[in-house]
Amino acid sequence: MSDAPLIAGVELGGTKCVVILASGPDAIHERAELPTTHPAETLAAIEAVLDAWRGFAALGIASFGPISIDRHAGDYGYITSTPKPGWANSDIARRLAARYDVPTEFHTDVVGAALGEARWGAAAGLTDLAYVTVGTGIGVGLIAHDRPVDGLTHSEMGHIRPQRLGGDDWSGACPFHGACVEGLASGPAIAARTGVKGQDLSPDHEAWENVVHALGQLLHAITLTGVPRRIVMGGGVMVGNPFLFPRIRHALRQSLGGYIAIPEVADVDTYVVAPALGHNAGPLGAIVLGQQALLTT
Amino acid sequence: MSDAPLIAGVELGGTKCVVILASGPDAIHERAELPTTHPAETLAAIEAVLDAWRGFAALGIASFGPISIDRHAGDYGYITSTPKPGWANSDIARRLAARYDVPTEFHTDVVGAALGEARWGAAAGLTDLAYVTVGTGIGVGLIAHDRPVDGLTHSEMGHIRPQRLGGDDWSGACPFHGACVEGLASGPAIAARTGVKGQDLSPDHEAWENVVHALGQLLHAITLTGVPRRIVMGGGVMVGNPFLFPRIRHALRQSLGGYIAIPEVADVDTYVVAPALGHNAGPLGAIVLGQQALLTT
Repeated sequence: MSDAPLIAGVELGGTKCVVILASGPDAIHERAELPTTHPAETLAAIEAVLDAWRGFAALGIASFGPISIDRHAGDYGYITSTPKPGWANSDIARRLAARYDVPTEFHTDVVGAALGEARWGAAAGLTDLAYVTVGTGIGVGLIAHDRPVDGLTHSEMGHIRPQRLGGDDWSGACPFHGACVEGLASGPAIAARTGVKGQDLSPDHEAWENVVHALGQLLHAITLTGVPRRIVMGGGVMVGNPFLFPRIRHALRQSLGGYIAIPEVADVDTYVVAPALGHNAGPLGAIVLGQQALLTT
Repeated sequence: MSDAPLIAGVELGGTKCVVILASGPDAIHERAELPTTHPAETLAAIEAVLDAWRGFAALGIASFGPISIDRHAGDYGYITSTPKPGWANSDIARRLAARYDVPTEFHTDVVGAALGEARWGAAAGLTDLAYVTVGTGIGVGLIAHDRPVDGLTHSEMGHIRPQRLGGDDWSGACPFHGACVEGLASGPAIAARTGVKGQDLSPDHEAWENVVHALGQLLHAITLTGVPRRIVMGGGVMVGNPFLFPRIRHALRQSLGGYIAIPEVADVDTYVVAPALGHNAGPLGAIVLGQQALLTT
């Protein structure tokens, strides 16, 4: 691995950015963390870091979204319609690609995490997987044949509308959809329903039943895309509440009802797993994006 | 187009097979229809047709499913767990590929229809689309960057569980999931709920409201995969009831609630459309599969 090319990776998160110079998890040569403030300020700070690191062969950017990944679109490389103040319609990837003139790949943070886990983490060796983050929002990154599944745009499957648990008619917390999966099972949704943040809610609180049911429905839908051989679940709600894993696996198995009788899915304990890369998943995912940019140019 | 290589295409359907020798919709040199009976008999009949057509450069097979498309799996090329008598665990693609020794691609009938519509039909020129068939079952074919979206297996998104229409608690007709989309909106589901086949049910029957709602939810989920620039809807229930199109478009728009503010989706009249290839969509899709087999070998 020592002769793998050096890649610059940028994880652009809602509260902070991590910028690394690396060729893999055991070869992280430089690492910087920056607060995410206003685009002009944050991008200038990222550039100040990268300017000092010249010599990288490619650049990968894993960003919070929604973003435009359609290379035919006029707004390719932009963060598009985010409610985060100042960031809507912000050019990210075009600006950085032009400045450094190296092959550049731009995708969502959750696709980055999926690619990182597939290369070096909880799905190592698998070409087809999903990464689901359950935190402030619910994001889904789908990878098929080692590449992100996308087209017009990237996955937003966290906003599908699940079948409801019998007797539950809470209106949900999503401003667009009410009781979509994100509106039922994200951290803010849990807080809106219970008055208590997910990480502080007792494992025996009855609201978890609704959260687990909604997430089981999401995994059911992700499974039925036909893509994943494994689903990695991270994000603040999952990390703080490991008891959720067996409950979500059970909900998924119940929901599928024996459909998709393929061993990878049927063995639900190895099908739905926790991430392995910890706080470096995002920036390492950006390194994989940079490596993919090298391969396609 | 006259110098495009000749491809043999097989559409293997539940009641009949169509076998063609063609390079495109305006260059169909041979065409044969055969009843689908027992695998040994039907495959022998297909081979008798193809044997007389030697000279094709590749073979495409678009089959009813579920099928194994995982080239790493021991059962690659098989129809797997179908309830159709005699067809479970039947080798299709390995047998035909070995006999003709040409590049061979094998996928679902609905992926075939999607590829055909993308090349020559209602989504011509688009690299990313979905084809949804609403008939005896509900099938989804997803194409991204001109290739089928798959991984472990093929899409079975017709079996996702939708949010229910308020007040509707019918148990649904799917033997695996009850009230999944197929269990609520397929032809047999409509017949089970109303006692009347879909094609004979009056457009003002109240049961259509539930069918439209379920299909709107399916299109919502397909849209949120991020893949399609257009969704083509075919199958017996759609073909016989063109009034469904405006109602499904309306349901989709309502369900998305302004999410995915991209023109391709926002213009729902051109986003959700009828097929254009008619009864040749399946076999022409098989021709595209054969062309893709040529490209990858």
